[in-house]
Amino acid sequence: MPVTTSRPRVALVGTGLVGGSIGFALRNAGYHVVGVDRDPEHAARALASRAVDEVAASVAQAVPGAVLVVVAVPVSQIAGVVIEALDAGAPIVTDVGSVKATIVAAVEAARPTAAPRYVGGHPMAGSEQDGLDGARADLFVGAMWVLTPTPRTDPEAFTTVRDLVAALGAEPVEVEPSHHDSLVAVVSHVPQLAATTLMDVAASRGEEHATLLRLAAGGFRDMTRIAASNPAIWPDICAENRDAIVTTLDEYVAALEKVRALVAGSDRAELLTLLERARVARRNLPVSAAVAGALVELRILVTDRPGVLAEVTTLAGQLGVNIADLEIAHSAEGASGVLVLVVAAAGSEAFEIALAARGFHAARRDLA
Amino acid sequence: MPVTTSRPRVALVGTGLVGGSIGFALRNAGYHVVGVDRDPEHAARALASRAVDEVAASVAQAVPGAVLVVVAVPVSQIAGVVIEALDAGAPIVTDVGSVKATIVAAVEAARPTAAPRYVGGHPMAGSEQDGLDGARADLFVGAMWVLTPTPRTDPEAFTTVRDLVAALGAEPVEVEPSHHDSLVAVVSHVPQLAATTLMDVAASRGEEHATLLRLAAGGFRDMTRIAASNPAIWPDICAENRDAIVTTLDEYVAALEKVRALVAGSDRAELLTLLERARVARRNLPVSAAVAGALVELRILVTDRPGVLAEVTTLAGQLGVNIADLEIAHSAEGASGVLVLVVAAAGSEAFEIALAARGFHAARRDLA
Repeated sequence: MPVTTSRPRVALVGTGLVGGSIGFALRNAGYHVVGVDRDPEHAARALASRAVDEVAASVAQAVPGAVLVVVAVPVSQIAGVVIEALDAGAPIVTDVGSVKATIVAAVEAARPTAAPRYVGGHPMAGSEQDGLDGARADLFVGAMWVLTPTPRTDPEAFTTVRDLVAALGAEPVEVEPSHHDSLVAVVSHVPQLAATTLMDVAASRGEEHATLLRLAAGGFRDMTRIAASNPAIWPDICAENRDAIVTTLDEYVAALEKVRALVAGSDRAELLTLLERARVARRNLPVSAAVAGALVELRILVTDRPGVLAEVTTLAGQLGVNIADLEIAHSAEGASGVLVLVVAAAGSEAFEIALAARGFHAARRDLA
Repeated sequence: MPVTTSRPRVALVGTGLVGGSIGFALRNAGYHVVGVDRDPEHAARALASRAVDEVAASVAQAVPGAVLVVVAVPVSQIAGVVIEALDAGAPIVTDVGSVKATIVAAVEAARPTAAPRYVGGHPMAGSEQDGLDGARADLFVGAMWVLTPTPRTDPEAFTTVRDLVAALGAEPVEVEPSHHDSLVAVVSHVPQLAATTLMDVAASRGEEHATLLRLAAGGFRDMTRIAASNPAIWPDICAENRDAIVTTLDEYVAALEKVRALVAGSDRAELLTLLERARVARRNLPVSAAVAGALVELRILVTDRPGVLAEVTTLAGQLGVNIADLEIAHSAEGASGVLVLVVAAAGSEAFEIALAARGFHAARRDLA
């Protein structure tokens, strides 16, 4: 029996990492969350951990009275659940799938009249840890949350979803569905496959294995780190975003073939041009927008990493310097590296002086 | 005029990042270092910063009286300088080039009689910062230092170089020259080119650029980080290690083509097998050997990275827990992540309890 409450009701389908985090965040934002999970044990755990206020046995039972339905199931099941929610009379439906074009097209084809009430979404936030254990209310704070309305989308439905996303602390950004898919293929899906493949090539070197991996230093570790993340979600993503991933993989392979030709021909000048162009692009990668105003990048040579981290980050905290981003830039070889901090320009001079007093020389660069 | 000293003399050719660091480390170890640099300004700076004890105008002038010559010039110039030093009568010559087979073969072909006095070397240590500014005495502490003797190498020369490497704090490891080149192609050279190429593909997406890069999250940042390192050394390395790099690039491209076929065919089962195999390999990458004894990996969910870093690393210091390795494992999407610490098993339980008391849940895994 539904709980009586004056808070607006939201139906949440799927209580894994992202669904659970949305449940926590929605409850914090004043919503009454009705959870549905096809695994009754998952639903019970979501209720016990207070990710949801109550549990419903099915989408059809969760929808009545809900102002919005959030679909947070694996990508291959999203279109079906969205259609189920629309059929049950949900006023507005959104989802959180990493792929958008196939889902949006499937919903519009199957339910041309109801589809305007559906707004595709994709929060650019996640965790290496999957399931409810990794869920937290602040997962989306400061994250970009892509929304993919189409010309058919109801403007009011879009506005409602956009405001909700903002209320969860995320930054909504509007992108056309297939454009979204081609973007994430480049910045997320193909990098994952490239890292996985590189790790697999290195690991498959048979009897050389032991020596090989002992020689693997910081650069290799950085490049293959995401190969350690949860594999379970990727087959679905690869299937749903097949075309964009194949196109980008082809582009990547073609670019590698060009590099191979430069190496085979010992074309030093062209290799240097490529390396310099990529260096500039990497150094200009925008950083987190969590700190407002002008930003400064400080690069500090690191001798003893863990000790230095504690010292530098504690010092920043003591001086009230807001750290927007922090990276440990390994060299291609060796365990040493450079600590890259991005901090608010305001207060950065005092921080630099304090760092210098402790023997840390920081190379400074103003960011746009 | 040479300085008179009772300390053993070493001639050091090249005073950049690695050469300068060797100078500092050799002087600390009790050697008298005679520096040579084809750029007189660099030589003067090395003398002024005490990386060397004195400066000689040429290799021929630096060699007399030296027990050993260390060649730390760009890889394309190494063979020539090694031959010059052998011709000047150096009792033992070693180098620090990232590529070995072509150099060793060139020396053995040009000076078959003197070549036994040459021992190829490659310290697996570096810095993102190039030149003397990045040089430090402890650059090699805990690093692997590959030595590549051949059947012709004089055993005494090898033993002398091996002991010197150990005296600088590095761990000498003996590898056959072309085997070395094939190993570094896999763990260093091809990863550098793969990261550079991925960054270039992403940056070349024209008008999509701005949105694209705003969506680029932790995983992409990790994968492309080494693309920001000093480009100048790579054209030389690519030319000298051409064959091994081309072979490995071909292997990488072939593996990517296989992945492309799996994606194009939506072969979820095979994709999952690959992803799981790579995950196991990545998780089993050996970590730094700086901490002796049994090791434990702790994975901690990170909400506010800089603050957490300071808190966790300070806590480890207070409890005397030795941190062998530290990584921030970004998820493929989003700015949040997992802090991965590798600590000595001894004392790790107290550390876990202290972490839990501060609200950090650490997932624990015993390492071999």
